[in-house]
Amino acid sequence: MEQREAAATGEPCMRVDAVAKATGRARYTDDYVMAGMCYAKYVRSPIAHGYATKIDCTEARALNGVLAVFTWEDVPAIPFATAGHAWTLEPEKRDVADRLLLTRHVRHHGDAVAIVVARDELTAEKAALLVNVEWEALPVITRPEDALAADAVAIHEAGNCLKSSEIMAGDPLKAIAQADHQVGGHFQTPVIQHCHMEGVTSFAWMEEDARITIVSSTQIPHIVRRVVAQALDIAWSRIRVIKPYVGGGFGNKQDVLEEPMAAFLTLKLGGIPVKVMLSREECFTATRTRHAFTIDGKLGISRDGILKAYMLDVLSNTGAYASHGHSIAAAGGNKIPYLYPRIAFGYRATTCYTNLPSAGAMRGYGAPQVVFALEAMLDDAAAELGIDPVEIRLLNAAREGDASPVNHKIIHSAGLPECLIKGREIFEWDTRRAACLSQQGNLRRGVGVACFSYTSNTWPVGVEISGARLLLNQDGTINVQSGATEIGQGADTVFSQMVAETVGVMVSSIRVISTQDTDVTPFDPGAFASRQSYVAAPALRQAALQLREKILQHAALMLHQSAMNLTLVRGDVVLTERPNAPLLSVADIAMDAFYHPERGGQLSSEASVKTTTNPPAFGCTFVDLTVDIELCKITINRILNMHDSGHILNPMLAEGQVHGGMGMGIGWSIFEEMIIDETTGVVRNPNLLDYKMPTMLDLPNLECAFVDTHEPQSAYGHKSLGEPPIIPVAAAIRNAVRMATGVAINTLPLTPKRLFSEFREAGLI
Amino acid sequence: MEQREAAATGEPCMRVDAVAKATGRARYTDDYVMAGMCYAKYVRSPIAHGYATKIDCTEARALNGVLAVFTWEDVPAIPFATAGHAWTLEPEKRDVADRLLLTRHVRHHGDAVAIVVARDELTAEKAALLVNVEWEALPVITRPEDALAADAVAIHEAGNCLKSSEIMAGDPLKAIAQADHQVGGHFQTPVIQHCHMEGVTSFAWMEEDARITIVSSTQIPHIVRRVVAQALDIAWSRIRVIKPYVGGGFGNKQDVLEEPMAAFLTLKLGGIPVKVMLSREECFTATRTRHAFTIDGKLGISRDGILKAYMLDVLSNTGAYASHGHSIAAAGGNKIPYLYPRIAFGYRATTCYTNLPSAGAMRGYGAPQVVFALEAMLDDAAAELGIDPVEIRLLNAAREGDASPVNHKIIHSAGLPECLIKGREIFEWDTRRAACLSQQGNLRRGVGVACFSYTSNTWPVGVEISGARLLLNQDGTINVQSGATEIGQGADTVFSQMVAETVGVMVSSIRVISTQDTDVTPFDPGAFASRQSYVAAPALRQAALQLREKILQHAALMLHQSAMNLTLVRGDVVLTERPNAPLLSVADIAMDAFYHPERGGQLSSEASVKTTTNPPAFGCTFVDLTVDIELCKITINRILNMHDSGHILNPMLAEGQVHGGMGMGIGWSIFEEMIIDETTGVVRNPNLLDYKMPTMLDLPNLECAFVDTHEPQSAYGHKSLGEPPIIPVAAAIRNAVRMATGVAINTLPLTPKRLFSEFREAGLI
Repeated sequence: MEQREAAATGEPCMRVDAVAKATGRARYTDDYVMAGMCYAKYVRSPIAHGYATKIDCTEARALNGVLAVFTWEDVPAIPFATAGHAWTLEPEKRDVADRLLLTRHVRHHGDAVAIVVARDELTAEKAALLVNVEWEALPVITRPEDALAADAVAIHEAGNCLKSSEIMAGDPLKAIAQADHQVGGHFQTPVIQHCHMEGVTSFAWMEEDARITIVSSTQIPHIVRRVVAQALDIAWSRIRVIKPYVGGGFGNKQDVLEEPMAAFLTLKLGGIPVKVMLSREECFTATRTRHAFTIDGKLGISRDGILKAYMLDVLSNTGAYASHGHSIAAAGGNKIPYLYPRIAFGYRATTCYTNLPSAGAMRGYGAPQVVFALEAMLDDAAAELGIDPVEIRLLNAAREGDASPVNHKIIHSAGLPECLIKGREIFEWDTRRAACLSQQGNLRRGVGVACFSYTSNTWPVGVEISGARLLLNQDGTINVQSGATEIGQGADTVFSQMVAETVGVMVSSIRVISTQDTDVTPFDPGAFASRQSYVAAPALRQAALQLREKILQHAALMLHQSAMNLTLVRGDVVLTERPNAPLLSVADIAMDAFYHPERGGQLSSEASVKTTTNPPAFGCTFVDLTVDIELCKITINRILNMHDSGHILNPMLAEGQVHGGMGMGIGWSIFEEMIIDETTGVVRNPNLLDYKMPTMLDLPNLECAFVDTHEPQSAYGHKSLGEPPIIPVAAAIRNAVRMATGVAINTLPLTPKRLFSEFREAGLI
Repeated sequence: MEQREAAATGEPCMRVDAVAKATGRARYTDDYVMAGMCYAKYVRSPIAHGYATKIDCTEARALNGVLAVFTWEDVPAIPFATAGHAWTLEPEKRDVADRLLLTRHVRHHGDAVAIVVARDELTAEKAALLVNVEWEALPVITRPEDALAADAVAIHEAGNCLKSSEIMAGDPLKAIAQADHQVGGHFQTPVIQHCHMEGVTSFAWMEEDARITIVSSTQIPHIVRRVVAQALDIAWSRIRVIKPYVGGGFGNKQDVLEEPMAAFLTLKLGGIPVKVMLSREECFTATRTRHAFTIDGKLGISRDGILKAYMLDVLSNTGAYASHGHSIAAAGGNKIPYLYPRIAFGYRATTCYTNLPSAGAMRGYGAPQVVFALEAMLDDAAAELGIDPVEIRLLNAAREGDASPVNHKIIHSAGLPECLIKGREIFEWDTRRAACLSQQGNLRRGVGVACFSYTSNTWPVGVEISGARLLLNQDGTINVQSGATEIGQGADTVFSQMVAETVGVMVSSIRVISTQDTDVTPFDPGAFASRQSYVAAPALRQAALQLREKILQHAALMLHQSAMNLTLVRGDVVLTERPNAPLLSVADIAMDAFYHPERGGQLSSEASVKTTTNPPAFGCTFVDLTVDIELCKITINRILNMHDSGHILNPMLAEGQVHGGMGMGIGWSIFEEMIIDETTGVVRNPNLLDYKMPTMLDLPNLECAFVDTHEPQSAYGHKSLGEPPIIPVAAAIRNAVRMATGVAINTLPLTPKRLFSEFREAGLI
């Protein structure tokens, strides 16, 4: 096994949690047990819209081993919001509080009317089946267009339109009209689910004086603390959230899911530990999904390929509850304008309720949908103008010194042209493209490319704050606490590299305390918006600089030297002018600081830093695929993602991150779709047999490469990478299919069923 | 229930953990469970000295459910020390490393030769019985005098004398000889056990990459971390120790007991959780006891009662292993000289091994034994000189400005005279004493008094360091992390009061994170030497001042004011000149600091402070008792402890602390004794039926009062209180018995059996 001998960012060091995870020692929420733990199971709605008119819990309560059954009548009448956004002092910016712990008015298939707590899981399940509910059905709305109809039944009292917004930079409609050429399209994306390996599970108990502790598989422990307190109307500090290792979240766990219920149950039951664990089926119907977008797009372009303007009209289907509300549809307008900035930009979005399962955050947060539309239109324009798809993107791509047309922020690092140029070479684009021209027969090959831009956090939409604390151990190692959460993406590893680089020690000397505990872990809202490496970095760096300074100050005392003459190199204090002659190790200094009878003390540091910059990362996908027209089947021959994420903190992990995103991107493009009955709102495939998530065997070899730019606003020169890899995949595939077949398919996913109807319509079969 | 509305030290606020403990929600080590936890049981020696010549584990290993059996051959050949002392950089000051995890050479009844791990406790017990051991007996030594004999068998290779020391201040022997009057005595104190309610229990598992986590009922989590690492020869940072609530320790858990074994077992067994929990019987024979001291004392005094000098020769029996080694015998020479400082002082001590169970730290740490001898002799002198026992103490007691004859440290707060004067009045000493003169008959009454001095930490014997971290929550409450441990004594409550007072908020806004976790809790060696309130205070105070300053700085930003003009009063920021007009609450400031988009950050502070002062606390016990000469029975009519512990941080908790000490003192004086066969070394009463620990019903009403001095070297004016209450009790009782009966009994405990033989010898019966 490779030894981690790295001492800085930029080096390909092994994940710090690799051994723990490979050996099974890493503990996830479900690995924690409590003496006397009880289990909760929901009673869920079989209909997608209506009222529970009567509920009878007698039989359930009588079952041996059942502790309690709670219905909508027992829960606090406090509507709460579940989105994993940092809190805001401005009430109008807060998330929509439209959810109760249990509800009589069920709004989607699987909505919860009651919950049973029993001494064991099986008894809880049995008892849940014994709760008798009578239902009154209401009309079911599954399409946003229907939800917005004047006579539509109101899913929530405030109406079915959650919010609309508009961003106009310049006059896009006029610019489109005046351009040489106009291209347009109507785009539709499916409802999909995150399908993280580890399910949704939380448990809670009471400890000490009226305080609730919650262990949960979440991306956002500090936000969970706040939302649970709000949902139960108790002081925030009375909630403690512990987040162990997490087996994937992808945005689903950027929502507060079962934590308020677990807390409510233990509160009602005198503090006994209660676990709420959802089945895979419940994850599909009753957690969150990716928003289905309907997008009407239009662009104007000069005949030589200069993009003049584009305008996107987005209709977003958030399902039964707001969750992240309108912010996902709105995000498209913030994250994309950097891509081709020398334009007039128009973006209109409306989010509305339907009776689908609740949509929430998912990797890319609206960008994959919007980029799909934009990059399809640009590609169609290139085809019509006879310009190479790579060339047309190079003509319009962001360059250093450009500014976003929307917020006018300067782009300081712009590696997109290099991604396109380098990618074209690696991918052998020209050769492959040449091979695709004028094809006949059943098997047709196409190449496609698509680009994206994506920001590095939520600023200025949300407050961006992160904290870090470092503690020097006696053996010279350093414990790092960060509120930013490891959810499988490798955060702990790059944080270790950052601290090692700045303090001047080996990465193997750093230990990130991976389990967050809101009682003691520095504040940070959590893992989302590809924010963590960017926003946690200044706090880690500031704390590391402080600790480094304290180490050198103490070394100076020991050496009777001025600290000014000393520096730290790979764990040793040296004279700046003699870097190869170690004077003291960090361990020597730590021992003296701890145990010298008079001087010193434990060396530690802490910083909490707000971030007010938010540079965009860039990149693109190249794909080469073959379409079997008769079988309506796509085979990917080669796929390559190119990324400009600034300085790459850990090439090995970055590659893993990109591979994961590409895989999910392929899933969204050609495999995955929650099949929801349009009439009844019933989810037809809420399981991993019927829901076609690609496995390793379904995926091609995934390739990626980076252009190593340096973002000057960033603590270590880096930018976002977590979500980006998924964004351009679908458009690249769709563009390649169009090149191969001549059929421009604007509805995802490109399943055989879809291809069949499109090919039939186009007369290909 | 009383509301905690306190805002400062000195107020009688309710324990912060009262509700948690009264409701059973407080979690102790045994309340933690792990999935797949296994249990270990020792195979122990039935003889007190000898060798295991043969061991056969075949049957034990074959038992269904047994995972492993380890013998002395399997454990690391790394001798380690177990004493709960801060580490020192000076090798010669380190504790004696004379212990292995398991041993072939057994040195006391109950020494451990092997250990069994099984899936459940019963199987482990059964399997332990199936291990067949053959023994070769060696001569058993139970008395230190025998251990020091030239031909004594060596219990440890280095010999039976652990260490000798001598402190001479002036020329005590000469001063005694030249005094008007000489008094002497030969004193003996018994072996007793701490009998904490919660037993000794630890469990360990491996997590992440080769790191061992240990949950343990310990007073000293940070020391446990170090000693486990030393015992297993691994890096200190690879050990993590978690200390939940503790049900009493009294010094027994100031030793590293079963943690190294738990860690060793999980290390050998691939990381599975293994629990080592001792039975009450094992606590008696195989944890620690109080050292039996044999003391030869002598003092010289003027005819008008001025003490000129005294000399004590201490022989301390540490049993089979060093544990705290010679430091307990030596401590008598450090803690007592402050009491009557205007003297020549002589103190010689020798500690030696025997084949008794290992002695270790116990409340008072040698001082009860030494004070027993000194205060008996002084009382005998007073009787001979015809001086009132209170008067003779007033003549000699420490006064402000005196200095210790040993280390010449000035005594800045000296409340002993006031304790004696106020106590005499409260106790109605003069009336009671008058009633005791010239008695006849079977029931005879006596009054007694005895004094003590006791220091407030271990400085300069050990490094004194403590750390504290404060985190401001969104709701204005403050989380406090301290490495100083709550073990039932009320540390968390007085820490809360300190922080509240210094920050300027209510005590109810403070929450001490009671569970230490060495990965994240600021460093402090732990609960011992009555050090915590004294040594943790400067760290808490410094951190509180920092946090207060940060809160005021942020308030100044919000108010467009200079922070200089602002102050904090009971949770509100006010203008210094208008303290009754709140401008902002701490919660308002916290919310802005967290969530203002640009300014602020999470407000926190951390301090690690070394202490280099160590003032003595003082006090005395007054007792009025009746001796039934025929029944050889003592009945306490009234007992009062008076204490000068500087500023009393919490009168309610202080009273509880004193009551507990007085109860233990009475136990040691007239009830408790481990009966160990002098020939075989076998412990005859290792259980709470045969070992006579006084219950509530056996104890008189316990009274106490304080004199409120102010110690200027102390962060809050306070001094030690944890151990002191036990110290003077035995001498006061012995002195009262002598007054009642004329018989001076110098061997504890004063059980009926002892009284019978003494009274018979004196011709009373």
